[in-house]
Amino acid sequence: MHRTSLEVSYDGTGYGGFQIQKNASTIQGELEKALAVIYKKPLRITGAGRTDAGVHARGQVVHYDAPFEISAVRLPAALNVLLPSGIVVLKARPVAPDFHACRSAKRKVYSYSLDRAPYPQVMRRRFAYHLPGAFNGQAVKKAAQLLEGTHDFQAFQAAGSPSRSTVRTLYRVDIKEYPDEKLLQFIFEGDGFLYRMVRLLVGSLLRVGRERLEPAAIAAALAGDYPQAAGPTAPPQGLCLEKVIY
Amino acid sequence: MHRTSLEVSYDGTGYGGFQIQKNASTIQGELEKALAVIYKKPLRITGAGRTDAGVHARGQVVHYDAPFEISAVRLPAALNVLLPSGIVVLKARPVAPDFHACRSAKRKVYSYSLDRAPYPQVMRRRFAYHLPGAFNGQAVKKAAQLLEGTHDFQAFQAAGSPSRSTVRTLYRVDIKEYPDEKLLQFIFEGDGFLYRMVRLLVGSLLRVGRERLEPAAIAAALAGDYPQAAGPTAPPQGLCLEKVIY
Repeated sequence: MHRTSLEVSYDGTGYGGFQIQKNASTIQGELEKALAVIYKKPLRITGAGRTDAGVHARGQVVHYDAPFEISAVRLPAALNVLLPSGIVVLKARPVAPDFHACRSAKRKVYSYSLDRAPYPQVMRRRFAYHLPGAFNGQAVKKAAQLLEGTHDFQAFQAAGSPSRSTVRTLYRVDIKEYPDEKLLQFIFEGDGFLYRMVRLLVGSLLRVGRERLEPAAIAAALAGDYPQAAGPTAPPQGLCLEKVIY
Repeated sequence: MHRTSLEVSYDGTGYGGFQIQKNASTIQGELEKALAVIYKKPLRITGAGRTDAGVHARGQVVHYDAPFEISAVRLPAALNVLLPSGIVVLKARPVAPDFHACRSAKRKVYSYSLDRAPYPQVMRRRFAYHLPGAFNGQAVKKAAQLLEGTHDFQAFQAAGSPSRSTVRTLYRVDIKEYPDEKLLQFIFEGDGFLYRMVRLLVGSLLRVGRERLEPAAIAAALAGDYPQAAGPTAPPQGLCLEKVIY
């Protein structure tokens, strides 16, 4: 067996998410279909993060066990010919047999993009959530700082979450502003994320931005009080898995 | 009659171009459909530029004669509710009865975007032409400078062009590089453009970039020699009508 990892980017629009499903086209399904052609047998892949329907990736990582070796230099181009245009393999790498795309990951970086133009920017509509109007950036920065560090994020996970421990560390919650492009971007870097955690965090931060929630309510939610301070779940199109760090 | 102008942006992917057609969905068709709902009667619009199938716009301008006045502040939002998500009206303005979206235009600005990453960037694939590999930027700059000014661009028009005179002035042919985003953009500002002129110019510039054409061949093509130096027509997805200046 030749364990191989792939770095993959995709436009999640129109896909039923990363994970394979019976009744929807998925990223995993498309990748496995292309790999089956290349290796002439069905293969199962494991992803670093199971992104939801409509969520994108610039640097998703997957691994699989190949029945034979193919040059890592040639593999991306060979797969890209077979894949739909919205899924692009950026890199392939032979890895150790104990490498695991999800369990070996040390950190993940997600971005969440907001289109701040008065009317939606057509070229961003697949990759940003359109949120015009008043926005208190100072309050959001304050709230974002409260999220950094090691906390119990139980209030920020969706029901049906399989995680045992809900303690996670956020190393970084940045807010980047691109005024020329009328774009605002949240960056989350953490050792792991609960189910829908980023979108729930963004949902809360957006309420803070619209002055419908005090920054202090975020700290209270982390302390287990006021779980109603968490969310709502921000729409999927703004979210992107930027990078997985091993 | 209330002559009204609209500033419109669109993602041209999947549309049969700006101009109304029988067998394809077009930008004009979609705009006229939405206007007919608002004004409760069929209206005809005139655009500043008839962008081809797959070509985009950030600042297309159209005009039409409305049977009654609607607040220019409210009109964009009312139209955007009716339009598909890839077409967005940015501004409405009451204009003089002799204003003409195309004939009153003094200048137009087009951009052409190249994705220079080794594999296509999924989030740019609708709005940039993927061209990896060696590229002689210096030679392209030299060739671009030769295009600036007033010339007979006959060599750079597609067959079936309705224009009588083929003399046009290019005020500016810029090349912008965004190395962080692996993006290269050509900007063309001119008093008017022949049919497919920008895409033919880009086609020539790309041949210069790949060192398959000397910059001097561009000057020769402008002088009427070597018409084979013009083109080929660069693919539509890189092209965007940025702005119309009146």
